[in-house]
Amino acid sequence: MSLWLAGVGVSRGVAIGAVHRVHGTDLDIPEYHVDPESLDAEVERFETALDDARAQLAHIREQIPANAPSEIGAFIETHLLMMQDSALTDTVSTLIRDHRCNAEWAMKMQAEHLTAVFDEMDDSYLRARRDDVVHVAARIQRILLKQERRIEPGRPDDDTPPPVIVADDLTPADIILLHQQGVAAFVTERGGPLSHSAILARSLRIPAVAGLHAARRMLMDDETVVVDGEAGHVLAAPDAGALEFYRHRQKRDERYRRMLGMLKDETAVSTDGVRVHMMANVELPDDSADAAEVGAEGIGLYRTEFLYMNRDETPGEEEQLAAYRRVLRSVDGPVTIRTLDLGADKTIGREAKTSSNPALGLRAIRLCLKETDLFRTQLRALLRASAEGDLRIMLPMISNIQELRQTRHLIDEVMAELRRDGLEYDPKLPVGAMIEVPAAALAAPQLARYCDFFSLGTNDLIQYTLAMDRVDDEINYLYDPLHPAVLQLIRMTIEAGHAAGIGVSMCGEMASDKRYTALLLGLGLTEFSMHPASVLEVKRAIMGADVADLKRATREILALTDAQSYRDGLDALSHRLVG
Amino acid sequence: MSLWLAGVGVSRGVAIGAVHRVHGTDLDIPEYHVDPESLDAEVERFETALDDARAQLAHIREQIPANAPSEIGAFIETHLLMMQDSALTDTVSTLIRDHRCNAEWAMKMQAEHLTAVFDEMDDSYLRARRDDVVHVAARIQRILLKQERRIEPGRPDDDTPPPVIVADDLTPADIILLHQQGVAAFVTERGGPLSHSAILARSLRIPAVAGLHAARRMLMDDETVVVDGEAGHVLAAPDAGALEFYRHRQKRDERYRRMLGMLKDETAVSTDGVRVHMMANVELPDDSADAAEVGAEGIGLYRTEFLYMNRDETPGEEEQLAAYRRVLRSVDGPVTIRTLDLGADKTIGREAKTSSNPALGLRAIRLCLKETDLFRTQLRALLRASAEGDLRIMLPMISNIQELRQTRHLIDEVMAELRRDGLEYDPKLPVGAMIEVPAAALAAPQLARYCDFFSLGTNDLIQYTLAMDRVDDEINYLYDPLHPAVLQLIRMTIEAGHAAGIGVSMCGEMASDKRYTALLLGLGLTEFSMHPASVLEVKRAIMGADVADLKRATREILALTDAQSYRDGLDALSHRLVG
Repeated sequence: MSLWLAGVGVSRGVAIGAVHRVHGTDLDIPEYHVDPESLDAEVERFETALDDARAQLAHIREQIPANAPSEIGAFIETHLLMMQDSALTDTVSTLIRDHRCNAEWAMKMQAEHLTAVFDEMDDSYLRARRDDVVHVAARIQRILLKQERRIEPGRPDDDTPPPVIVADDLTPADIILLHQQGVAAFVTERGGPLSHSAILARSLRIPAVAGLHAARRMLMDDETVVVDGEAGHVLAAPDAGALEFYRHRQKRDERYRRMLGMLKDETAVSTDGVRVHMMANVELPDDSADAAEVGAEGIGLYRTEFLYMNRDETPGEEEQLAAYRRVLRSVDGPVTIRTLDLGADKTIGREAKTSSNPALGLRAIRLCLKETDLFRTQLRALLRASAEGDLRIMLPMISNIQELRQTRHLIDEVMAELRRDGLEYDPKLPVGAMIEVPAAALAAPQLARYCDFFSLGTNDLIQYTLAMDRVDDEINYLYDPLHPAVLQLIRMTIEAGHAAGIGVSMCGEMASDKRYTALLLGLGLTEFSMHPASVLEVKRAIMGADVADLKRATREILALTDAQSYRDGLDALSHRLVG
Repeated sequence: MSLWLAGVGVSRGVAIGAVHRVHGTDLDIPEYHVDPESLDAEVERFETALDDARAQLAHIREQIPANAPSEIGAFIETHLLMMQDSALTDTVSTLIRDHRCNAEWAMKMQAEHLTAVFDEMDDSYLRARRDDVVHVAARIQRILLKQERRIEPGRPDDDTPPPVIVADDLTPADIILLHQQGVAAFVTERGGPLSHSAILARSLRIPAVAGLHAARRMLMDDETVVVDGEAGHVLAAPDAGALEFYRHRQKRDERYRRMLGMLKDETAVSTDGVRVHMMANVELPDDSADAAEVGAEGIGLYRTEFLYMNRDETPGEEEQLAAYRRVLRSVDGPVTIRTLDLGADKTIGREAKTSSNPALGLRAIRLCLKETDLFRTQLRALLRASAEGDLRIMLPMISNIQELRQTRHLIDEVMAELRRDGLEYDPKLPVGAMIEVPAAALAAPQLARYCDFFSLGTNDLIQYTLAMDRVDDEINYLYDPLHPAVLQLIRMTIEAGHAAGIGVSMCGEMASDKRYTALLLGLGLTEFSMHPASVLEVKRAIMGADVADLKRATREILALTDAQSYRDGLDALSHRLVG
């Protein structure tokens, strides 16, 4: 009898393979007292384990396959950096001495302390860093406990189905090693779509299901399973009919991927001849390789927050300049760099003044215009980089004209400085505004006079327009990209931009979701920027669209005041371009 | 030589009088150890002082003059209630015993603890309650220390100028007693425009300046001073020219007040015949007397939060019913009652789940639709009260149609219950939405189908539209009622309401500021609701307005995309109706 197990799909695709369970990270940590005269030896034991862990990771880094996405290197690098961080290393030694306890226990205490700090953060990016702490701590503890994780060697017989790895959790390093051995899929008891391992599985295009709590108890080694990484299901003991169904789906998926791959170098033009620009978002510097791989025509959103996080002092001009130059060299087409988009509560290294509503407080452009030294350093680096490529500056959280004027004034000052210093820059470098505050969308006709382009940040725009915080799980049911208010603001922004003769792109999640492609074309959007993984799919939808027809349909739907007809209309529209 | 002292004007008007300093509330509290065998006596000494303080306040309550605004009673009542609150009374006795300290010191410790709690609240209303704690504690401490505040008797000579009271701070009770003795003005070193004493001074129309830090050191008893309650200035040793200037202003102000008084029973009709409805906002139940006094045509906003605050359990149906009936009886015309508008963080008696952005969280209608028992009780009380007058239900923080539908459904259920219980209600009672979330203003054409009226809550609408928290002093410079986005949302709401044939009123601060009257008329507003103190002034402005002309001018200004011309146009508009 077949058995369905339900988890969370974190990497799409169907795999059929044989279960292969690996040891867990949920180690049983003993606690014991260490005599005062043995404390030095215990600290040394910890330091040796730390050295071994570093050596292991350095070795894995060497083995990253050439065809692997470049972000894997960054993951491994992050873990290596954490192993040098005093919060993890010095503190554990101090804990051993203060508590006169064994190294494993001290490591456990400090890991729990650090994860508790991450648990309190309301930023999904930072929360994902919590997993890094857990994994780094587990690697050190496994060495201390001599319980190192061993991956069983792949079976020599070619007829055996490829292994479906079943584990409590997997680190990016595990994934690299397993991938080299040729795995069919990953199934983990813990983790979620934002963990590094999930991102890595998606980059490697290996189907993966996470959060399948009892996986290691329910699945037996060597039994055949089907993993559906889209639905988040694992099917154990599939019958012949199910196997045939899923083999058929694998073939269909493979055809679809090949077809998408062929679109890489195609220009996105609709059936009625409307040219659409397909750009990519970049969160970490090395993501830009993925952007090039899917044929993105440039970077529509390059986030600079990674430069400022997890450190004590702010990044200097030269460090920033090097990062901006690197991304300019890695892609053809324009690179749109967003200036620092952190709140006063997030910028490490400064006093954390607690405001009662940080999302409505001193953040992004507001913080930059207050802490002008911080901002000037970034602007200098951006301007210097602009001498070497098509760089554009994008300002987050603009809500009025004064902010644009002040920024333009600062840029003029920095340009004068650079001239004095004999440094080059592009004097015509475009400066644009993120449209993510309702006031900016509504005042777009005025703002357009001070901008070279607009970029719609739909995630925040939706949150502010509906006065709801998506991270607040008591009210996140209110999040609704199709709310008539949201669509009106998008339409107003696009129309105001086009009326003023400036480009309008969208870099929020809406742009990357093919269910909204018809609607966005209907609203007049002709520049999309999204995660590289979605570029080809959205491009395909666009190439099948009749934009004039979609515009007519969209106009009719938005004019409806009956809520049901409005939703029905949008629903029908979303199915127009989706296969 | 004349001396200008600058503070904060908290009650308008000019006064000329002789300085009369009164003892401070900044008492020097001794701390000493109490022997275990004397602790009972010390607790008794505290309880006696508490009884005396209650008796004093009860006496003052008896002496409230018949012509004084009814809210004074509420202030005194609040202080009497605080003296019965266990947080103030039992806790102090416990502190005396636990710390073996004197009663004054225990009172000081507890007062500091309570004020620290209030300091952390981000609601200006609740923060003003902090002063109540200080004043109640000071009253008890003065009795314990036998340093009771004595107001010197007024001088018998009629030629002596009336006294200008100079104090560190004044309680509403002090103000009542001093007012009876005929004072010209109040000058305090502490306090601000939101303190009870400031509100009381405004109600009594006595000029007052607060926050004049060194007042008692800079001003000498019996010297003549001019108090300008509008500018927030005190002029010491005025020369003849200054005295003449201010006497002239006093006369002009007096004429203006008389003229306004004559408008009380006039209907607000513009010069071109547009009829405007003038309603009053009510924060505390007894405010409604003030509304009647200025000829308000009804209550446009009756806040129900006072019923829920400073208590452990939520108010029952009968208590609420009694409050709603009272306000219905106190005024002619409709009474618009807003359902509970508190955040989950504010409702005392339930678990304070901390959301990272409470202003974007579970609050107002969101909280009511989650905690339906709480909401049903309020709806039952409102529906039962509706049998006895023109009551309207107003729903705060509406952002979509589902919220309106769910509320309508609950109301239908409650109506069915009442029918079963044989209780009367108005089956056609109007239900409307506050428009204070950008999404609501933008989706007003859709929402109008589910509403009997709209009411623009400009304070929150401005904050959400600009994504800024006015309470956050790092970014409150962004608060801007004239931002083009804000004016567009107001215009859209008014137009959508009128197109759907439903009334649109405004109950935010913008409605009560005569600088915005021309603009609001120009935007098509015909229902204003505001603090009673502003009703007559705004009515006067309306009666001098040519609405058709203002509409034309407003339309032209809003179409301007040049920021400077836009601001200049609005500036000129604001001066059209202001004398």
